[in-house]
Amino acid sequence: MSADTLNSDEKTSTFPITEVNRVKRVPDRGRYDKKTVYEILDAALVCHIAYVIDGRPYCTPTGFWREGDHLYWHGSSASRMIRTQGKGLEVCLTVTHVDSLVMARSGFHHSINYRAAMVFGHAHIVEDKDEKLKLMDSFVDRIYPGRSKLIRQPTPQEFKATTMMSMVIETASAKIRDKHVDDEEEDYAGVPAWSALYPITQVLGAPSDCVRQLPGLSRPDDMVDFEPGAPLDQVMSKTYRRTFGSPAAD
Amino acid sequence: MSADTLNSDEKTSTFPITEVNRVKRVPDRGRYDKKTVYEILDAALVCHIAYVIDGRPYCTPTGFWREGDHLYWHGSSASRMIRTQGKGLEVCLTVTHVDSLVMARSGFHHSINYRAAMVFGHAHIVEDKDEKLKLMDSFVDRIYPGRSKLIRQPTPQEFKATTMMSMVIETASAKIRDKHVDDEEEDYAGVPAWSALYPITQVLGAPSDCVRQLPGLSRPDDMVDFEPGAPLDQVMSKTYRRTFGSPAAD
Repeated sequence: MSADTLNSDEKTSTFPITEVNRVKRVPDRGRYDKKTVYEILDAALVCHIAYVIDGRPYCTPTGFWREGDHLYWHGSSASRMIRTQGKGLEVCLTVTHVDSLVMARSGFHHSINYRAAMVFGHAHIVEDKDEKLKLMDSFVDRIYPGRSKLIRQPTPQEFKATTMMSMVIETASAKIRDKHVDDEEEDYAGVPAWSALYPITQVLGAPSDCVRQLPGLSRPDDMVDFEPGAPLDQVMSKTYRRTFGSPAAD
Repeated sequence: MSADTLNSDEKTSTFPITEVNRVKRVPDRGRYDKKTVYEILDAALVCHIAYVIDGRPYCTPTGFWREGDHLYWHGSSASRMIRTQGKGLEVCLTVTHVDSLVMARSGFHHSINYRAAMVFGHAHIVEDKDEKLKLMDSFVDRIYPGRSKLIRQPTPQEFKATTMMSMVIETASAKIRDKHVDDEEEDYAGVPAWSALYPITQVLGAPSDCVRQLPGLSRPDDMVDFEPGAPLDQVMSKTYRRTFGSPAAD
């Protein structure tokens, strides 16, 4: 993955390590630099958000995207709660890419390869109407570059029915496993179990046109990255760069 | 997906709908029957778990599996907390399968197809040594049928370093979107935007042997489901049934 969309601060900065974001289990897999965290986020379509209502934890999957040090997503069932909380709702937003299964010669060394990012902050509802309208376009364009200009704009009812959430990234960490089978030395010769790594990839299939497609329409040039068989994380990274481009700071 | 591993209670029961598990956003996508929830869980390799420490939410990805109305996974950084909590740590465990991108003629009707399950309960550490040892085997066999018999058993150090978590499913819900583009009637003819559904599938690649493989070893017959190109959710459903079989209650 390249880092075309990262400015110089994002390419070199790291998040301070505290009790909140420190990777505790297998700590040598932890990363705290913005570049690693942001590239994991920008390659994802969906995240999982943890939040607390009445002392109880909830974990909700949702589409999201990043702009600078902000994350955005659609409102959830927590929206009613958030409206009453001036300081925002504390959340942990996590993205996980699963890259492979790793079959070792002991249970202890079985693993998966993955790239995960955990981001911490306080979620707010975007109340400003102009900002919200702009973000609704960005949500579409982040996945499908240029698409907001092709589709119908929101009606007043749709605008009202949509809750847009915003969060400043206060701290974050990433955790990555990216290696092959790694067994105890004595097990390589001593355990006659077939050991291997199975890659796992989330891929796009061939598009299925809407049955009521108007004649003469086909995939827009802006969607050139949507090739059947392409890995979704690569498509998302490319569409992200296509929409948000290279920052002036570079 | 078939439901071979579900007993008759699991095939017909539903979770009571309360404020905790009720699907609030797009409620007609909500499902509360055990069959739907359990099939989503049993098709997954990884879940995301939300929990609260010192009032702050965390969202951790991890491997897991189901046996009856219990869920199991490896201990996380929350383990220290849990040891001190007799009643267990309240968690929300969520599984999400992403099935397609849905491009509509308005931003409002853009969507993804997905199958998600949210499960609520209290997590405990498995303290019984025999149960823990059995579960460590099940964790391997759930993914790779029969593999626990091929590999080296845990050393005392590995056993001690492993924390196994257990949770009774107290309540749950599923949420599913499974349809094509669904636009406002006037937009089909009125908006000249190419509209389509892109399938998304998580697939297995071809295995990469450990470079220190002993001669003469190859993929065991028990792993017949691990065909390169196979969708991971289908592989996980098949290996689940292969390991846990059909319950006597059927």
